Amino acid sequence: MDPIMPFGIPLWAELAAVGLGALQGALFAGRFTDRRIDVLGVVLIGIGVALGGSLLRDLLLGEPPVVIYGAWYVLVAAITALLGLCLQRLFARLDPLVIALDAVTIGLFGAIGASKALALGVPGVPAVFVGAAAAVGGSVLRDVTLNLPVALLHVGSLYAIAAAAGAALLVVLVAAGGPVFWAAVACVGLTTVMRLLAVRFRWSMSEQQ
Amino acid sequence: MDPIMPFGIPLWAELAAVGLGALQGALFAGRFTDRRIDVLGVVLIGIGVALGGSLLRDLLLGEPPVVIYGAWYVLVAAITALLGLCLQRLFARLDPLVIALDAVTIGLFGAIGASKALALGVPGVPAVFVGAAAAVGGSVLRDVTLNLPVALLHVGSLYAIAAAAGAALLVVLVAAGGPVFWAAVACVGLTTVMRLLAVRFRWSMSEQQ
Amino acid sequence: MDPIMPFGIPLWAELAAVGLGALQGALFAGRFTDRRIDVLGVVLIGIGVALGGSLLRDLLLGEPPVVIYGAWYVLVAAITALLGLCLQRLFARLDPLVIALDAVTIGLFGAIGASKALALGVPGVPAVFVGAAAAVGGSVLRDVTLNLPVALLHVGSLYAIAAAAGAALLVVLVAAGGPVFWAAVACVGLTTVMRLLAVRFRWSMSEQQ
Repeated sequence: MDPIMPFGIPLWAELAAVGLGALQGALFAGRFTDRRIDVLGVVLIGIGVALGGSLLRDLLLGEPPVVIYGAWYVLVAAITALLGLCLQRLFARLDPLVIALDAVTIGLFGAIGASKALALGVPGVPAVFVGAAAAVGGSVLRDVTLNLPVALLHVGSLYAIAAAAGAALLVVLVAAGGPVFWAAVACVGLTTVMRLLAVRFRWSMSEQQ
Repeated sequence: MDPIMPFGIPLWAELAAVGLGALQGALFAGRFTDRRIDVLGVVLIGIGVALGGSLLRDLLLGEPPVVIYGAWYVLVAAITALLGLCLQRLFARLDPLVIALDAVTIGLFGAIGASKALALGVPGVPAVFVGAAAAVGGSVLRDVTLNLPVALLHVGSLYAIAAAAGAALLVVLVAAGGPVFWAAVACVGLTTVMRLLAVRFRWSMSEQQ
Repeated sequence: MDPIMPFGIPLWAELAAVGLGALQGALFAGRFTDRRIDVLGVVLIGIGVALGGSLLRDLLLGEPPVVIYGAWYVLVAAITALLGLCLQRLFARLDPLVIALDAVTIGLFGAIGASKALALGVPGVPAVFVGAAAAVGGSVLRDVTLNLPVALLHVGSLYAIAAAAGAALLVVLVAAGGPVFWAAVACVGLTTVMRLLAVRFRWSMSEQQ
């Protein structure tokens, strides 16, 4: 079998995803007006949401973190978080757009994470886990740092499930011999559609009894 | 001196320990009926408790995480956590058995962690630290993710102390030239006995004054 | 260009910084008399504050953690934390001295972290990030483990900002061709002065609006 190449997206697309994560983090932190988070705190949470997923992916894989060794990630995350802080009212109106773009982003991070894991020789099931962790890591880091209940564990709108389903589809397609690129496209498509339908129709997992 | 080989246990025994961790995690999460943790949340906490110690060990050692590069760990943890969720009432009755098996498990994780550290050239004191961290890492990860006070820091039943004592015994025996296998057996024995006696007689460390 | 050598300080100076971190952690934990933190908890928080920054630095850089592979770090941290616990009243009186020494320490950790990042080929902006993370990582680890709001995110006294400013100065000076040693001295000086002036005059960042 040919070696599996990780799915990559152009740097500008990756940085756009990083910016979107930082923007969301800053908007999220901006809602805590009672807790006296200062400007630095907002920027740090933006960076955490934007880079947390990639960091977690590379820690799980034992690889040097791409977002540290690349020149642009931290810079783009910090600047976008500052922008988000300054233009909070503007961006708050764009909430539906942000949710839609975020759905694409978790799909992209899931595809990058799962395919990088496969390329390094990680077997199928843990590769799905790495993909899902890469997709949701930023949100977990945000909640732990802000001392909030981790949203992901509670009844919600199929955030992690959508990411895991997409990553699982990618792993199955690659195992069946499909090209990584199209498997990644399918992964992003499935994650995006599941997530958006879940938000639209308020789907959620059954609570434990 | 001969190179030190890390203490290994057969894969089935390691997976049994993983399953036990996941079961405990799921039962623990199952008690939070007021916080609306969904099925995915329970499974994720199960995976965290089961794999957190090994992950922490490999992060501290700068080694690629075994539980990601091995095919079975994530799968066994997820399935056992689901089982634990479905059969909560049954397993709740087995609580004393679970505590006893868990005492053996922290001993095993301590022995694996400390001997792996020694094999990589880590000196004695930090090797004990890595062993203890490997033993209790899952429980810390569980508490941080669930936004609870970290049990380990508070007055309790010699959980981390038992793990550290066992790991220290292993390090001393290996330094004295003993074979790793029997040092590991002594480590597991000491940790198990200390932990069970502590639970039985409610031993605890003195609180700070 | 010559390869960049990381800025190093003699082992005794590094261990003194570790001891100071552990002391602060133990004193901090010692204030929680209502939460029944036991002796082990205090020692673990001391170790976390003392070693957390170096650990975070090496995780971000994908390097084997120095504080695990070196023989003395864990031992010095544990013993100093115990000392801090026993001599709480004595050390509480030395609070101004502890704050002053801590300002030097975050400067040192920032300089070590940023220069190690540059030496490994990390570009400027993320190198500043690594330096700042190395300086404040212990304090973040402390807050997350103790289930407290992360101090760093809230309106405070330029703790992380002072570290980031020092690290940025180091990166700029090295990029301009300056020797690492003097760039590190400038970094420690700037961080220390900014931090002490901020504490003295109660400077803080503007809160988000």
